[in-house]
Amino acid sequence: MDYKYLGQIKTPDDVKKLDYSQVKILCDEIRDCIIDTVSKNGGHLASNLGVVELTVALHRVFNSPEDAMVFDVGHQSYTHKLLTGRYDSFSTLRTEGGLSGFMRPCESEHDPVVTGHSSNSISAAYGIYRAKKIRGESGTAIAVIGDGALTGGLAFEGINNAGRIRGNFIIVLNDNKMSISHNVGAISKAITRLRNRPRYHSVKSAVNRFLKKIPLIGTGIANFTFRVKEFFKRIVYRNTVFESLGYNYLGPVDGHDLKALESLLSDAKRYNRPSVVHVVTTKGKGYPFAESKPKDYHGVSPFDIDVGTVETNNPTFSDIAGKTLVGIAEENNRICAITAAMTTGTGLSEFAERFRNRFFDVGIAEQHAVTFAAGLSKGGMLPFFAVYSSFLQRGFDEVVHDAAIGNVPIKILVDRAGLVGEDGESHQGVFDVPYLSLIPNVNIYSPCYYDELEYRIKEVAENDQLAVVRYPRGCQAQKTNIDCSTDFTYIKRSGKTAVVTYGRLFSNVFSATEKSDVSVIKLNKIYPVPDEALKIAGGYETVYFYEESSKKGGIGEHFGDLLYENGFSGSYKIIAIGDKFVEQSSVSDAFKKFGFDIDSIKRTLGVK
Amino acid sequence: MDYKYLGQIKTPDDVKKLDYSQVKILCDEIRDCIIDTVSKNGGHLASNLGVVELTVALHRVFNSPEDAMVFDVGHQSYTHKLLTGRYDSFSTLRTEGGLSGFMRPCESEHDPVVTGHSSNSISAAYGIYRAKKIRGESGTAIAVIGDGALTGGLAFEGINNAGRIRGNFIIVLNDNKMSISHNVGAISKAITRLRNRPRYHSVKSAVNRFLKKIPLIGTGIANFTFRVKEFFKRIVYRNTVFESLGYNYLGPVDGHDLKALESLLSDAKRYNRPSVVHVVTTKGKGYPFAESKPKDYHGVSPFDIDVGTVETNNPTFSDIAGKTLVGIAEENNRICAITAAMTTGTGLSEFAERFRNRFFDVGIAEQHAVTFAAGLSKGGMLPFFAVYSSFLQRGFDEVVHDAAIGNVPIKILVDRAGLVGEDGESHQGVFDVPYLSLIPNVNIYSPCYYDELEYRIKEVAENDQLAVVRYPRGCQAQKTNIDCSTDFTYIKRSGKTAVVTYGRLFSNVFSATEKSDVSVIKLNKIYPVPDEALKIAGGYETVYFYEESSKKGGIGEHFGDLLYENGFSGSYKIIAIGDKFVEQSSVSDAFKKFGFDIDSIKRTLGVK
Repeated sequence: MDYKYLGQIKTPDDVKKLDYSQVKILCDEIRDCIIDTVSKNGGHLASNLGVVELTVALHRVFNSPEDAMVFDVGHQSYTHKLLTGRYDSFSTLRTEGGLSGFMRPCESEHDPVVTGHSSNSISAAYGIYRAKKIRGESGTAIAVIGDGALTGGLAFEGINNAGRIRGNFIIVLNDNKMSISHNVGAISKAITRLRNRPRYHSVKSAVNRFLKKIPLIGTGIANFTFRVKEFFKRIVYRNTVFESLGYNYLGPVDGHDLKALESLLSDAKRYNRPSVVHVVTTKGKGYPFAESKPKDYHGVSPFDIDVGTVETNNPTFSDIAGKTLVGIAEENNRICAITAAMTTGTGLSEFAERFRNRFFDVGIAEQHAVTFAAGLSKGGMLPFFAVYSSFLQRGFDEVVHDAAIGNVPIKILVDRAGLVGEDGESHQGVFDVPYLSLIPNVNIYSPCYYDELEYRIKEVAENDQLAVVRYPRGCQAQKTNIDCSTDFTYIKRSGKTAVVTYGRLFSNVFSATEKSDVSVIKLNKIYPVPDEALKIAGGYETVYFYEESSKKGGIGEHFGDLLYENGFSGSYKIIAIGDKFVEQSSVSDAFKKFGFDIDSIKRTLGVK
Repeated sequence: MDYKYLGQIKTPDDVKKLDYSQVKILCDEIRDCIIDTVSKNGGHLASNLGVVELTVALHRVFNSPEDAMVFDVGHQSYTHKLLTGRYDSFSTLRTEGGLSGFMRPCESEHDPVVTGHSSNSISAAYGIYRAKKIRGESGTAIAVIGDGALTGGLAFEGINNAGRIRGNFIIVLNDNKMSISHNVGAISKAITRLRNRPRYHSVKSAVNRFLKKIPLIGTGIANFTFRVKEFFKRIVYRNTVFESLGYNYLGPVDGHDLKALESLLSDAKRYNRPSVVHVVTTKGKGYPFAESKPKDYHGVSPFDIDVGTVETNNPTFSDIAGKTLVGIAEENNRICAITAAMTTGTGLSEFAERFRNRFFDVGIAEQHAVTFAAGLSKGGMLPFFAVYSSFLQRGFDEVVHDAAIGNVPIKILVDRAGLVGEDGESHQGVFDVPYLSLIPNVNIYSPCYYDELEYRIKEVAENDQLAVVRYPRGCQAQKTNIDCSTDFTYIKRSGKTAVVTYGRLFSNVFSATEKSDVSVIKLNKIYPVPDEALKIAGGYETVYFYEESSKKGGIGEHFGDLLYENGFSGSYKIIAIGDKFVEQSSVSDAFKKFGFDIDSIKRTLGVK
């Protein structure tokens, strides 16, 4: 498409040159371009459509990169990309070698830090800000953070540290009244209260008008008036959470009103105190489908613009996990389900509706989720925390400290385990096996198929293990008729080579070896490694270990170490993900790259 | 010692039977007992002396374990232990097989969860609380949290989730005006403001008295009065951070005034809303040395009660790290130092004084510390974050996401790496090697001696690596005259056996092998494993890997995997810490247990 204004924006300076009527058209063009690209490449839609005017206003009031802008989570950074010289490459969004769907410093000097995991923007921007001040550089730093991301403890740590400094550090609170699904907790309610009250400055002038009305009869009343004013100063001016924490609170302002936005942002720029600028935006703004169902348009696959996204009927691993939990919760009233702002993503919508009393959306707060689960367990419940592999990284210490030390039998459902595709480095589920298997008392299962996942969830609900069940994004592969109810499944063939593997990679290993004499050991419980599996593998001359995980600290290394410790004298080779972050590409391309596809496996094993 | 009342307290019910004059004596006895025991066994003194009356009041108002009490960090749980049937075993505090210095469920039904790492109490107690409500059980849950621990994001996540519920969940804010050294950030200043204002209830009645004074002249004024009152209701009654977040705010109350404490706690118990009870305590209360220098009496080694603790002149690894940073900061004005509430513990006191502008105590906020460091680095500074191994677990995701993905060259000084002794499971630094080495782009160094530590800190300040330098608690062993400036040090001897090791274990390995023909490879850079070291080790028939770390995911496994991958055909054995949490004991006893002492090493290697 040819855009009159957008096509001409090469740097943020070009945005400043436009008048308001031109900017309005620019905003429309940006929305068109985003909808068009995301409909083709998939990506985050509703959140990006919500911040078009806000981002334009930021670039008109501030000077990136001198003023560093950090868009939290990064899935609200598309407009920023379009305005900072990346319009021409925008069609490569989320493709291999193309633009990332999040902020990436390697892409542009206008992306100061990596964003992808929620709630880091304040700390990162504040670091940049303090560095500027130490070095005597001009400019400021701005963190743009959604009200959802504000529930993350990291965001609070940032707010706490940046509060009460001298200087114009700025937090833009992008209040779209929801994070991904809906919002959680006290801070969200406090924000709602702010959103629904008259504008701050209006309140203040109302107070002033009101004070002027006080009749002045004698000095008693004069004193009284003075004291009223003092009282108001002390209290009214500090009556928001943010003001209690040392910030100017500016807002709320309509996030689609450019002039109002620019006025408030300019105010914030002038202060010598940190500010919170409260901007109320509409998720999905400008695309009716997305505006009416923002949840469905958070992260989307390619779709037809005129029709909108279409729900598929294919169940995913997440759906099966959710359905299974519903099933066991019906029988067992101790079952609880916990999500960190991913009710739909983790398949828990039905559970949430059916068992409101036992369902907990804790907001983007993985640390709390784990510790809270441990508390529920101590109180006699049986909590399942469903969470994406890369986001559970936030709860690592809590798994160690609050669950594992005391061997508290919480159950963690690790979704998006393994390669995830287009979301790239920050979202790959390639570390959970290393970081969870290093923790004593943790038992890890990695099913390959839906019925295995179901079986495993039911099993861990019955035992008293601190258990992790991990499964990939998306759908299962063609089902093979094998029994996975034991700790491992042994497919014995006549040759001297065995492949040990687990999770969905088994499916490819099975297909690759089906017509060969290579034996296969599928680990169903992957850690602790089943002794018997070790013994069997130790009887082969050559053992290949296939692992859809980072190799370092993975099961392959543990398995190999134990093999040799038990006197194995054959050769052993791990095929896994090397010591690098995995960049965005389709999962199937990534599989080829790592030698995980059927052809590559055949080649490696030398079979046909 | 024989205590008149303390000796008779077998359960918390016994505390309830005493009258106030008896309770006063009990409190004195508790203080005596704590001072006496800590002077012999070492432990946390100042924090425990501060909460004697508070803990007694809690046990008089509530019924543990039906009312679950979670003492954050646990280093304020000694009085709780003394009142819950552990007086007789209190002399075993912090000894092998004895009472833990923190809460441990395996010790007593009155310790509902493990505490040791800061800021988990609210989430854990809230989990227990919700479980009770789901199950229809009576009782409540109480989190006792220091103002220092409140700076941790996990605490905020807990506050955010527990706010605005219906029910009497209780947070006791133990405000001792400092965490371990002094307090940090906006929340601390907000608390100070609360502490210094008149009591909440007094404010409210002052307001009422004040409103009554408004002259009633005509309906205009009547309306005016009404509006004033409404305004006050809306604003005054919600003008604390905690009230904004949905809590009753009760306090501040003198934390050493038993009657006042009991009154306020009883109020909190009756409400059908969550409460924050703000209790102002004096750290070190009752022991003049500790009261005047609470910092020095936070965690102490055994000392003479009449003399107090004595500063030793022996420098520690922490001191050397701090001194080295001061040295390079003099030359290079990009150097920054960051601590998470451990200025003294990490040896940064001098840096803090000398370079105030480049020193950041971020409070107990390891996540922020890492992300903030990444921001500082992006802004052109050279930040060093000094942090204990077990506490950096909280920043795991931030090391992955905010530092490693973008290969941001922050420097992490991992203190207390390895076995730490009497603090037990939650404080052992045995996981940092596994959880850091699994992250791409991270370079890890593990010096054995002071001069090596100094050299390494200077080196990583000069290069552009994301670097970790890890070192143990305490002092260096007898110095050996070897060069550690390369990636590894090879001590070649005539035999067919080699030992590969790193960190302080090298000292024992060196002594054990000195008179033998066993070669030693000391890894100075432990990850990525130096290629040349692998090649050399691969030439031996037998390789032992000695590692003061959890074995799973440790360097031994990585090294072994790489050895075999490169065609090693000899035998390989890792001596490291097995798949269990390491309980409290002296470091030297733990060394013997794991076969790390000189005699054990000799025995294992079969040398004299």
